[in-house]
Amino acid sequence: MTATLPELPRLMIDDAVKAALLEDWGRAGDITSQATIPVETKARAVIVSRKKGRLSGLGFVESACRQTDAAIKVEALADDGEALEPGMLVARIEGPARSVLASERVGLNYLGHLSGIATATAQFVERVAHTRASIVCTRKTTPGLRAFEKYAVRCGGGSNHRFGLDDAVLIKDNHIALAGGVALAIERARAHVGHLVKVEVEVDTLDQLREAMDARPDVVLLDNMGPETLQTAIDIIDGRALSEASGGINLETVQAIAEAGVDLISTGWITHSAPTLDLGLDIEIV
Amino acid sequence: MTATLPELPRLMIDDAVKAALLEDWGRAGDITSQATIPVETKARAVIVSRKKGRLSGLGFVESACRQTDAAIKVEALADDGEALEPGMLVARIEGPARSVLASERVGLNYLGHLSGIATATAQFVERVAHTRASIVCTRKTTPGLRAFEKYAVRCGGGSNHRFGLDDAVLIKDNHIALAGGVALAIERARAHVGHLVKVEVEVDTLDQLREAMDARPDVVLLDNMGPETLQTAIDIIDGRALSEASGGINLETVQAIAEAGVDLISTGWITHSAPTLDLGLDIEIV
Amino acid sequence: MTATLPELPRLMIDDAVKAALLEDWGRAGDITSQATIPVETKARAVIVSRKKGRLSGLGFVESACRQTDAAIKVEALADDGEALEPGMLVARIEGPARSVLASERVGLNYLGHLSGIATATAQFVERVAHTRASIVCTRKTTPGLRAFEKYAVRCGGGSNHRFGLDDAVLIKDNHIALAGGVALAIERARAHVGHLVKVEVEVDTLDQLREAMDARPDVVLLDNMGPETLQTAIDIIDGRALSEASGGINLETVQAIAEAGVDLISTGWITHSAPTLDLGLDIEIV
Amino acid sequence: MTATLPELPRLMIDDAVKAALLEDWGRAGDITSQATIPVETKARAVIVSRKKGRLSGLGFVESACRQTDAAIKVEALADDGEALEPGMLVARIEGPARSVLASERVGLNYLGHLSGIATATAQFVERVAHTRASIVCTRKTTPGLRAFEKYAVRCGGGSNHRFGLDDAVLIKDNHIALAGGVALAIERARAHVGHLVKVEVEVDTLDQLREAMDARPDVVLLDNMGPETLQTAIDIIDGRALSEASGGINLETVQAIAEAGVDLISTGWITHSAPTLDLGLDIEIV
Amino acid sequence: MTATLPELPRLMIDDAVKAALLEDWGRAGDITSQATIPVETKARAVIVSRKKGRLSGLGFVESACRQTDAAIKVEALADDGEALEPGMLVARIEGPARSVLASERVGLNYLGHLSGIATATAQFVERVAHTRASIVCTRKTTPGLRAFEKYAVRCGGGSNHRFGLDDAVLIKDNHIALAGGVALAIERARAHVGHLVKVEVEVDTLDQLREAMDARPDVVLLDNMGPETLQTAIDIIDGRALSEASGGINLETVQAIAEAGVDLISTGWITHSAPTLDLGLDIEIV
Amino acid sequence: MTATLPELPRLMIDDAVKAALLEDWGRAGDITSQATIPVETKARAVIVSRKKGRLSGLGFVESACRQTDAAIKVEALADDGEALEPGMLVARIEGPARSVLASERVGLNYLGHLSGIATATAQFVERVAHTRASIVCTRKTTPGLRAFEKYAVRCGGGSNHRFGLDDAVLIKDNHIALAGGVALAIERARAHVGHLVKVEVEVDTLDQLREAMDARPDVVLLDNMGPETLQTAIDIIDGRALSEASGGINLETVQAIAEAGVDLISTGWITHSAPTLDLGLDIEIV
Repeated sequence: MTATLPELPRLMIDDAVKAALLEDWGRAGDITSQATIPVETKARAVIVSRKKGRLSGLGFVESACRQTDAAIKVEALADDGEALEPGMLVARIEGPARSVLASERVGLNYLGHLSGIATATAQFVERVAHTRASIVCTRKTTPGLRAFEKYAVRCGGGSNHRFGLDDAVLIKDNHIALAGGVALAIERARAHVGHLVKVEVEVDTLDQLREAMDARPDVVLLDNMGPETLQTAIDIIDGRALSEASGGINLETVQAIAEAGVDLISTGWITHSAPTLDLGLDIEIV
Repeated sequence: MTATLPELPRLMIDDAVKAALLEDWGRAGDITSQATIPVETKARAVIVSRKKGRLSGLGFVESACRQTDAAIKVEALADDGEALEPGMLVARIEGPARSVLASERVGLNYLGHLSGIATATAQFVERVAHTRASIVCTRKTTPGLRAFEKYAVRCGGGSNHRFGLDDAVLIKDNHIALAGGVALAIERARAHVGHLVKVEVEVDTLDQLREAMDARPDVVLLDNMGPETLQTAIDIIDGRALSEASGGINLETVQAIAEAGVDLISTGWITHSAPTLDLGLDIEIV
Repeated sequence: MTATLPELPRLMIDDAVKAALLEDWGRAGDITSQATIPVETKARAVIVSRKKGRLSGLGFVESACRQTDAAIKVEALADDGEALEPGMLVARIEGPARSVLASERVGLNYLGHLSGIATATAQFVERVAHTRASIVCTRKTTPGLRAFEKYAVRCGGGSNHRFGLDDAVLIKDNHIALAGGVALAIERARAHVGHLVKVEVEVDTLDQLREAMDARPDVVLLDNMGPETLQTAIDIIDGRALSEASGGINLETVQAIAEAGVDLISTGWITHSAPTLDLGLDIEIV
Repeated sequence: MTATLPELPRLMIDDAVKAALLEDWGRAGDITSQATIPVETKARAVIVSRKKGRLSGLGFVESACRQTDAAIKVEALADDGEALEPGMLVARIEGPARSVLASERVGLNYLGHLSGIATATAQFVERVAHTRASIVCTRKTTPGLRAFEKYAVRCGGGSNHRFGLDDAVLIKDNHIALAGGVALAIERARAHVGHLVKVEVEVDTLDQLREAMDARPDVVLLDNMGPETLQTAIDIIDGRALSEASGGINLETVQAIAEAGVDLISTGWITHSAPTLDLGLDIEIV
Repeated sequence: MTATLPELPRLMIDDAVKAALLEDWGRAGDITSQATIPVETKARAVIVSRKKGRLSGLGFVESACRQTDAAIKVEALADDGEALEPGMLVARIEGPARSVLASERVGLNYLGHLSGIATATAQFVERVAHTRASIVCTRKTTPGLRAFEKYAVRCGGGSNHRFGLDDAVLIKDNHIALAGGVALAIERARAHVGHLVKVEVEVDTLDQLREAMDARPDVVLLDNMGPETLQTAIDIIDGRALSEASGGINLETVQAIAEAGVDLISTGWITHSAPTLDLGLDIEIV
Repeated sequence: MTATLPELPRLMIDDAVKAALLEDWGRAGDITSQATIPVETKARAVIVSRKKGRLSGLGFVESACRQTDAAIKVEALADDGEALEPGMLVARIEGPARSVLASERVGLNYLGHLSGIATATAQFVERVAHTRASIVCTRKTTPGLRAFEKYAVRCGGGSNHRFGLDDAVLIKDNHIALAGGVALAIERARAHVGHLVKVEVEVDTLDQLREAMDARPDVVLLDNMGPETLQTAIDIIDGRALSEASGGINLETVQAIAEAGVDLISTGWITHSAPTLDLGLDIEIV
């Protein structure tokens, strides 16, 4: 099952985790533990989920431990993408007590943040599981963490929209106005970009949609439309493009929107506002 | 008023913003605008608050614009730390349309994230305004953004706890056990650190508190105590140390805890789970 | 004309140029000029094309000058993407002589390298101008320079294939074998990636092609086929996917391959083996 | 044999290779292999030379494999600097299939680029093997890769000219004019630099050469002179300095120039225009 | 004993050492050893103290060896913070001769510099050992090395003052003048900073001191006062704050100042002017 | 005069100064000034030399000011390399008070450190001014600051030895033993390195010197020889190589050594042990 889950290359994780460790250690490291814990003391710890949720970011915990001290052993007890219940053990950690404590907060901060996003995504995904709709994220991500947050969305069962301004065309009002119409805008975009780049167009009304469809976009973003308008839009599109609903969608409204028949539902909420998932480290000094 | 608001050095902002711009631009920049907007087109835009809240992070918008294109002009219409109402203008931006669009998302992502934290902080602060209590943040921050999130807490009227493991001593259960008692732990800490470093001790019970007070800590962290227990604790402390309440505090419980008389109330929620503040860019091509 | 040419964000250029300047200056800068040229001496210079070709990389020259000394003025006399003839002036540079000399080699190294790629691309493009075929580059680029070399290909009239392993799916022999057939491989890929990611399949024979077409790839890479086989392949594809010819294509063979009717012709040669374009700096001390 | 070949410190290689891996992996890594290849699948592969040439850069392949996945084993079957024949095996690679594929392109891009330079250098060296002349490279290198390209030149049997503007003095026309004559320029240079820095002077005519020799340079660069003029120049120099021929030298002209008796022949072509050497990865999934 | 000595996290050391190795290796590494020492030659070496002193920085030697070549083994024969006598062995190093030589200078440069600071600190500490005074360092450190130099001070038995402008308040003349008096300055500082930040005030006269004490600072810096004035100052402070003597203190004057009864004596000399400690590498080729 | 003084490229200075500013500002900048100084307050300041010495590093002060706040103006009142007397003004600084204070320490730390080295160098240079000897520095520099410290040596009138292991050959005992004799070692070195790299050999005795001279090194390092032995050595060398005296040379012994007739005298002391030069900032708030 996890064999098909997207992997995040370790090199990318290590650099981010190293920066976070140095951020937490500042100029002198964990002065409390240095003062009070003998250097030879060992610790055993488990990471426990305190809430129901979806796991994402275990590789960051492993990296925080390994980069702090090669003598720490981390045993994964769950996989990224796995559903969590309160009390479930996620990982077992064993090593020098000072090192375990020095790496704890960084590992948990990543794990809670990414699992929070995966959990929020999974909640949306669950609401639309009986439909054809996929839940997709946006570019409204925490600066510097985009690749990781997009990964967390995948762990939660969601899918990814653009990773940046460069990997797909998304034509909006201003682009259309300046290009002299939607057909011209799409034509220019196609001439400008490579053959592997898709073109998506945002429309606000059904009239705009009809005009846009003549220009054969790959995807149409239907902005701020209610379920009924969306159904009409799907009829107009008639399988000639993928359809994406967007705009102020939340856990209450997502089901009706999915049932209107759209292919994709995008929401910034799962990356910019998902609360952290509560995961704790229960530590035992040995 | 803003003269006394903590400033964030521009050099720190610029590096973070540059990384975020490169993250968003990927390998080819804003291909949609490149294809559809003539290079000489100008744009005027305003950043508008869509919700009630507290502003934080305007310097990141300015930096995103300036680093994208020195020809963009940004005029601040509000100050970090200022209260926002729906519809309030926060900044005016003018410059080459391509550049304004290429910097938009990064600026807004920072501004929404930090203003979200400032807003959440301000909500807590408001609930305890009639008491002596300060709202303080924790080390449960987004990896890589700690200094900025701590700044946002200050913008919201809160105060900062430790910035890292190195700038204050915080003695917990394990430290006490390994040091052979709270008095010995504090003594060792004092011997280990410089004269400008304060020592805080975490206690779970009133008995622990009484024992800890004999060792004269600078601050006592009262973990997971209800208002009544806190009041007894305050009596025990009797002005000999600062008192900090911590543990699962939320907007519903914070007032009663503050009224118990503690000096500080710490909460991870304002940094790890505050939703973004909805701020938008209204753009007009000229 | 150049308004529709892809722009490279200045931030990306500046970082690369800065690294190259520091590489060239080493530990003490231009010791020859420091020893022999008075600090107040000014220089005027022009960059001249010594050969016929296509310009790419003028922004790197501007960046090298500006980062070396803000007192240098650079006036562009041509645009990236423009055809060059021997003796054509490309830019005029004026400023402190020491600074002009200290930035010269880095600017020219970038300009010659990228213009060499643009020139090679333009030669391929010219041979197929009467056909529907686009010339596209590969991932066989100089390590660290990929975004810039892909830009140079666009300056030469070519188009870009994948920028990396992450922005499109390219299924080859091994992937097919391990996935249990081409249909299964494509299905898995579609399930794994976002809705904006295209799927391309590489085939070596017409039989493979027929099987692949049933799985509806977006693009088919026809590896190492001669013009006649390619024509049959185009017939089989019948407009249901884009077709890409690849494998040992050179200036002699490209025309016949294009005339077979393929949409895309990819060649690593234009990025990994294009000779530099000879551009020189004629300097006059004033 | 290889004991006397210059080594490139691993730390320098690792940083460059890491940057190239991240460039190739982008934001999500090798999505094709993630989707289609089970995580436990192993691969065996060999790197094969498809052409006659000279090897350079095997350390970059090793680094790409190791940094991608410590579980990959790389066995070198040849040494940098060794002559290659078509079909020769260069290295054997074994490890997780996904990791082998994720590191392949970066390793080969470095290996092909550097071996291309070594091969071009070896071709020049071969033409002058019966003379006293050494082939040396210039500062016309690919930005960011100079130390590696200079290493590749050494692998091809060539020798290195200046690594940058700081490690030797090279006095040209402008320097002489501004210093008030060649003697004054050399004198100033000697006064300015340390005792380990050599001074070279460029001359265009025999008259200039005669004047320059009185000033006792360590090396004389004879710019754009034909074989006969070079012979006269050698007579004038009469062993008092090293002689370097430079300017538009190619495989056709290099022999005659070497036979004129110069000590050094410099050419930018071997670094800025050498085509890649065709080396491929033959992979077998196990 | 060393269990209570502050540890420097390895990640911080490694980055600094890597930069220093690359600084020393330049563009081609140790060309002398490459030319003259066979790659298979092994070396055994010991680091010996040539002088009496205090050890600091052994982790930097270990890091330099490990990062140069994982095949080098380093055995510590002493601990940071330990007193050294002439001829004492500090570490034993064994590994490939080329690698040992390539890492030697960087390791010794760090070790000598930090041990020099520890030694100077220990000399001050020894003079005041019979008093209550601690020796503390300042922000007058070598740029880029502050955290390491502060660590060296701790190794020498000293204690640390501020690590930067952000971790404590230090109010001087100008701050007092602009804030409208010392009481107002302290009040503003307390309102501005977190509850873990201490406030120190600098005074030049006893009158200033009396005024300052009313405002209840945590620490008072008594600038440029002689022993007698200091004694009066201690009386005025009367245990209500820590007292720090500062200003031109040297090994001759420090004892009298300590005997005046101050808590802290700060000196920039131990970080900005301490001579290196002479430690050498005795190497034996095997 | 200063026109011939070596310049340090601004790009190199800026990176180092930026790192030092961030080191000093930590996570929140200058909290004292933020709390007590109104944002609109201006300051005027002068940098004054408190001692006799030699100036080096004014560019670092300028960079610290400019990078902190573009509104600060710095006017140089002296040049790097200039002799300083107590009370001499070195620079005038004017700008926002908070910014001036935030950049002060970093600028002064660089200026004091580099001027300290220049001053120490000038003291050695003065003692040998009547001889032919140059004072040269070694690789015993502060890690990370080598290029700057070598620059400071030049400001003090000294000259530079090797910048690293890569820019000259320095053959010592071990190299000779392993290469099979001094002649073989030099021969191998010459074969290994480029034509611009000089070869120096270290000898401990006159016998070694005689043997070494037959191999025609460019420079001979005469290790730990007294004035008389040095004179004999100079006779043996007889103008066939440069001569360098080294080993425990100090201000007391340097004159006699110079008068023995050596070309170069190297000392690590001027870089690893020179005390800082006392330069202060006199600030006036306006």
